[in-house]
Amino acid sequence: MNLSKRILSMQESPIRKLVPIADEAKKKGKKVYHLNIGQPDIETPDCFFKAIKNFDQKVLAYTNSRGIPKLIKSFINYYKNYDIHFEEDEILITNGGSEALLFALLAICDYEDEILVPEPFYTNYNGFGTSAGVKVVPITTKAEDGFHLPDKKVIESLITNKTKAILLSNPGNPTGVIYTPEEVDMLRNIAKENDLFIIADEVYREFVYDNFEYISFAHLDDIRNRVVIIDSISKRYSACGARIGSIASKNKELIKQVLKLCQSRLCVATIEQIGASELANISSDYFIDIVEEYKRRRDVVYEALSKMEGVICKKPHGAFYVIAKLPVKNAEDFVKWLLSDFDVNNETVMVAPAEGFYATKGLGKDEIRISYVLNENDLKKAMNILNKGLIEYKKINTK
Amino acid sequence: MNLSKRILSMQESPIRKLVPIADEAKKKGKKVYHLNIGQPDIETPDCFFKAIKNFDQKVLAYTNSRGIPKLIKSFINYYKNYDIHFEEDEILITNGGSEALLFALLAICDYEDEILVPEPFYTNYNGFGTSAGVKVVPITTKAEDGFHLPDKKVIESLITNKTKAILLSNPGNPTGVIYTPEEVDMLRNIAKENDLFIIADEVYREFVYDNFEYISFAHLDDIRNRVVIIDSISKRYSACGARIGSIASKNKELIKQVLKLCQSRLCVATIEQIGASELANISSDYFIDIVEEYKRRRDVVYEALSKMEGVICKKPHGAFYVIAKLPVKNAEDFVKWLLSDFDVNNETVMVAPAEGFYATKGLGKDEIRISYVLNENDLKKAMNILNKGLIEYKKINTK
Repeated sequence: MNLSKRILSMQESPIRKLVPIADEAKKKGKKVYHLNIGQPDIETPDCFFKAIKNFDQKVLAYTNSRGIPKLIKSFINYYKNYDIHFEEDEILITNGGSEALLFALLAICDYEDEILVPEPFYTNYNGFGTSAGVKVVPITTKAEDGFHLPDKKVIESLITNKTKAILLSNPGNPTGVIYTPEEVDMLRNIAKENDLFIIADEVYREFVYDNFEYISFAHLDDIRNRVVIIDSISKRYSACGARIGSIASKNKELIKQVLKLCQSRLCVATIEQIGASELANISSDYFIDIVEEYKRRRDVVYEALSKMEGVICKKPHGAFYVIAKLPVKNAEDFVKWLLSDFDVNNETVMVAPAEGFYATKGLGKDEIRISYVLNENDLKKAMNILNKGLIEYKKINTK
Repeated sequence: MNLSKRILSMQESPIRKLVPIADEAKKKGKKVYHLNIGQPDIETPDCFFKAIKNFDQKVLAYTNSRGIPKLIKSFINYYKNYDIHFEEDEILITNGGSEALLFALLAICDYEDEILVPEPFYTNYNGFGTSAGVKVVPITTKAEDGFHLPDKKVIESLITNKTKAILLSNPGNPTGVIYTPEEVDMLRNIAKENDLFIIADEVYREFVYDNFEYISFAHLDDIRNRVVIIDSISKRYSACGARIGSIASKNKELIKQVLKLCQSRLCVATIEQIGASELANISSDYFIDIVEEYKRRRDVVYEALSKMEGVICKKPHGAFYVIAKLPVKNAEDFVKWLLSDFDVNNETVMVAPAEGFYATKGLGKDEIRISYVLNENDLKKAMNILNKGLIEYKKINTK
């Protein structure tokens, strides 16, 4: 009566596994600033809730496996703002970006096939890889390089006859990296020359700072049949709980095949689709304000990190994460210690140890990921705690 | 730039593939009675919608990967009515029964492992099998036997060293069969003696007619660690569009492992969980009325089928489906013909050809599945059309 080897080998969420220690600290009355998860504090646009409250059908019925037509149209319209043009048979609504990622792997890879993924990467890519029986092969990137990609040769040396795709997030979670035009061009050439798909997780498309040039992989017209765009309303509209995502590609045959997977799970939650359909009506000013807000937060975090002794961190230009290399041996021990043994006026901070974001054993042990999803004031307090914690931790560990 | 072999080999939904032909008929002004899908016409309880309208949080945030505590508790309470006792760490909320089925396969089976499934079976079991890389091995049952199980020896002859579980729906979709105490006992012994799990899809638990004795696999205390219960609010509360299901087991280690899969997709849609949490407050009278309604519908369909010449169909005692063997060579051709070339006063009927519910090639070619999800009056009209269609079709084909 054994469980499967694949489920037993599956990684536990490195972000969520320290939650019990945080809960323990809270029980003792300590305040914890949560910089460990990507749950924004921004209000979900009111039109989402209004649409839900106006729902007046008597039977909550199955909807189309593709997604409800109004929602698909709203995604198509949204993309037009980015000069990205999808047709109705080129996009499917999914249970968050999560399901879109799983479906992309199932449609592109057979069992034991491989995908290349720049590491550190969004840790749940491991889970989808395990579920689909696909091996995640890391392209290692470094804090010192601001997590930009290595040379084409290095990447190509990782390609085998089992490699089917490159999966990446851009803007990057957990690194905040935005790939330069040169990097995008290199990936385009690698895909073309080695017959690979590019699965582009672009759920942070809006979160680009400093007028940094951002290129969607959907813009690469000459490889449009090789590109699969993963999307989600979770971060864009602060609607993580809606679980509304999408998979889109100019490769109509791919979408047609993925539709079979959609049909097997019947449909995506109806009410949340109805709420999400309204979000396309939000003016682009909405994003201007939000991006300004996140930029200020990024500045608070980055400036504080820059001043901390021994911390290595290049300025990230996108998403709402930053990875910092700390002057500690084991960042997980440090994070635990912050929660259980340290406080500033009975307040502490929770960040994510970065080791779980790497596939290569031993990497990231001295790194943490910070999500800047709190307001500036809280962020300042949290960064002050982190700084004092580092100093204190160093003292204890050099005694 | 090939797609995966597994996606290309995946079965298209046999229920949905004829939809374009039905749409064509409707365009021409023909009315179509839909007996092809399991979408009930019963109203979703109002408390579901009320709860949604009262949602007043400003940020639609991620919820617990397990499901929101209130919803888990409501499932636990619901089960108590059936003398089934699950604890909080023995149940997880899923995206419909669909996701629960996929997760069960991933947790129990490795790639190329096998599961035994009585056929005809819910066609999406194929999709979950393909996604998980698990081979569906059919235990053939027959219309003439009312789709009851063959002898223990026959079932055991299908077991190999790769067989990990028996998956079944009880009450059965698409057959309406309810397994007798003797059949349940046989399956219990097979599981015990051959070290197998039983994945029991019991989403039609309420739909039992004629005071037929129904035994949940959750009642088999001596094999409680081998039993996984798949559930859903879709049929029970006519809330198919909510996509709220669950996976439950007294095997706490299994649930703990499945939680990793839940964490990798973060959470289930928040709003729908909030609506679903209220359903446990519905009195058991609700089900008495609904089951009475479906029993009357079953009677309409079964009595009509019994009178049709050459049709073989035993009285089904559960769910809201019946499979009937027709005096035609190819039921799919007949179903298409009903839609495109036949009508009674410009009305016709759509049923599901049953071939797609069988894994064994060649079986079910002369069978259809009827879902009795319409009111009695419409059902009577639909069955009259079916009868007249059969007579007319026979005439044409013997010319």
